[in-house]
Amino acid sequence: MTDVVVGMVGAGQLARMTAAPAIALGIHLRVLAETADDPAAQVLPDVVLGDYRDLEALRRFAKGCDVVTFDHEHVPTDHLKALEDDGIRVRPGPAALLHAQDKLAMRERLDAVGAAVPRWVRVETAADLDDFVRVAGGPSGEVVLKTARGGYDGKGVRVVRGSADALDWLAEGTSLLAEERVAFRRELAVLAARSPSGQAAVYPVVESLQVNGICREVMAGAPRLDEDRALAAQEVALEIARALDVVGVMAVEMFETHDGVLVNELAMRPHNTGHWTIEGAVTSQFEQHLRAVLDMPLGSPAMLTDKAVMVNVLGGDLPDLHPAFAHVMARDPALKVHLYGKEIRPGRKVGHVTVLGGATDSVDSLLERGRHAAGYLTGEIDE
Amino acid sequence: MTDVVVGMVGAGQLARMTAAPAIALGIHLRVLAETADDPAAQVLPDVVLGDYRDLEALRRFAKGCDVVTFDHEHVPTDHLKALEDDGIRVRPGPAALLHAQDKLAMRERLDAVGAAVPRWVRVETAADLDDFVRVAGGPSGEVVLKTARGGYDGKGVRVVRGSADALDWLAEGTSLLAEERVAFRRELAVLAARSPSGQAAVYPVVESLQVNGICREVMAGAPRLDEDRALAAQEVALEIARALDVVGVMAVEMFETHDGVLVNELAMRPHNTGHWTIEGAVTSQFEQHLRAVLDMPLGSPAMLTDKAVMVNVLGGDLPDLHPAFAHVMARDPALKVHLYGKEIRPGRKVGHVTVLGGATDSVDSLLERGRHAAGYLTGEIDE
Repeated sequence: MTDVVVGMVGAGQLARMTAAPAIALGIHLRVLAETADDPAAQVLPDVVLGDYRDLEALRRFAKGCDVVTFDHEHVPTDHLKALEDDGIRVRPGPAALLHAQDKLAMRERLDAVGAAVPRWVRVETAADLDDFVRVAGGPSGEVVLKTARGGYDGKGVRVVRGSADALDWLAEGTSLLAEERVAFRRELAVLAARSPSGQAAVYPVVESLQVNGICREVMAGAPRLDEDRALAAQEVALEIARALDVVGVMAVEMFETHDGVLVNELAMRPHNTGHWTIEGAVTSQFEQHLRAVLDMPLGSPAMLTDKAVMVNVLGGDLPDLHPAFAHVMARDPALKVHLYGKEIRPGRKVGHVTVLGGATDSVDSLLERGRHAAGYLTGEIDE
Repeated sequence: MTDVVVGMVGAGQLARMTAAPAIALGIHLRVLAETADDPAAQVLPDVVLGDYRDLEALRRFAKGCDVVTFDHEHVPTDHLKALEDDGIRVRPGPAALLHAQDKLAMRERLDAVGAAVPRWVRVETAADLDDFVRVAGGPSGEVVLKTARGGYDGKGVRVVRGSADALDWLAEGTSLLAEERVAFRRELAVLAARSPSGQAAVYPVVESLQVNGICREVMAGAPRLDEDRALAAQEVALEIARALDVVGVMAVEMFETHDGVLVNELAMRPHNTGHWTIEGAVTSQFEQHLRAVLDMPLGSPAMLTDKAVMVNVLGGDLPDLHPAFAHVMARDPALKVHLYGKEIRPGRKVGHVTVLGGATDSVDSLLERGRHAAGYLTGEIDE
């Protein structure tokens, strides 16, 4: 068979979870890994070691790839353009990816597209920030300050009451934006996929629970979500994917407020809020991403069961997850456990657990099962 | 994390499909491959090249494995015993595996267990065969002659009317058995799993369609199967697993007759009749096999949807399956396609297609979709 080669920059858990659909579809997956111990580097035969900030490493890696895509958004735009100049297909392309790399670029583009977003302002000086706190701080006097680049899992985000809380970032000249602190009911997320030919697919809206900026739990579909609002959220995601010329899977994180939904963040890759799709949807987000970047027809995003919940396994006190495995599996034979092969560090995402449920299962009962397993694996729960 | 290492002898499609659950569970999968192009050798980082008939190759491969298991049944019993003497855990063990290697040993053991099987006789001479044709040949005067060892996918099986049709095998002194030609309604199969601690799980009974001894289609669960009969078939499988001390997944192929079920064949490994479990069951047969051989608690064998059908993709005229992919995927976005990375040869199993369905989908409509995809991929259908 002719080999189709997809190169993924980054070898974390997203690349690792892409291995299974690549194997099924007969797609050769290559990763650019920082170390041979990276989650995906452990399980794949074609691993290029190198730094994604090093253009020559990227070139070495990209040689022979039918398409280059990403496990993270950190590759410098200039390097991506250089790869394109070399004749490499880069998907999503640098122009689209910029909006997942730079929150200022993202907010400006979403304003132009007309998507509803929290009130925001570019912050270059202390006065910019203090002015915004007066306008948008509300009764609490608090706003959310974000670095435009480099934030993830709660990093690069700070709740502030004024410039006094951000003297370091202001002094460093970090590119910043401030946003109103939205009084949201809950957080939602929509996963969409788009191919170069413009075919698009959108998954059911999910609810996510974030603690300290880190995704802890996902409920698919979002419980008790108004049907019109769900449709509106999906339409926003599809519209953003089209307007930004996204190729591949894109996750749109949203706030649900009293009045509707506001777009919070974008990611242009498979996303933590879509891990439930591995078992819970006809086409997993990882398979969908491969199909999209290769411009193959997209797969059905329909759910296989009535409900699915996903609970992240965050590193805790136990240095090794395997000993707890037997107990967790024996207690709940229907649990789907995914381990990422990472060294355990407190608070680090080291795996996740998915529980599927039918119409007669309550979301709470599924959550309880997922939480117990995740807690037991990390030593937080010991019964 | 501590690595748990499972060594699988053989690197065909069964080992290839074992990669996905191994990755999810954080299990290190090593294969003993004949060539670097074997289906599983293409997708795994830990491949030992060697001949499974060579004890030293097996020893080199087994070193450092927590358990050794199999993608096929062809490893000589003495080699397996030698590995056990070296202190290697071999699962299923040589005593159990013998029944999947030698049809005479299997038939004798099933008689001892009291399982219902077709009438059979050991054939050492022409007279043995001719006598059996007179007794069991019925109106057609035909019986089924099988080589005790080495048969698969229709090889080593012949319908004969007497010793004149088997002069070659009789002259070679091949170990043979003859069986009555059962007037069956259809073929059924039951997949069971058993762990060293004795935990067992059994999957829903499926119907399989065999053409020239090669599995073409599987319907899960078996349509319109009487509930008592389904239960009886599952009980037979569990009883065989227990009596033969099977560890891992075992497939029992059966004939359904007017009166009940007769055991036809055994396989002690994941099996073609269980490929639907990848998407259609809570725990796939490949994950279940890993859990069983590692003595981890078994997973739920329940179906995720009301129905599942699987259609094998057999090599046809097209030398490459990829060009037909786009059409097949565009026509049916809910299709699950698995390619094995094999060179296409006419009649060779090179992939399979699974279609899941709900209570309102007819089995026929699911089969039509699966057959179309399989036929189109191989060039048999071109619309």
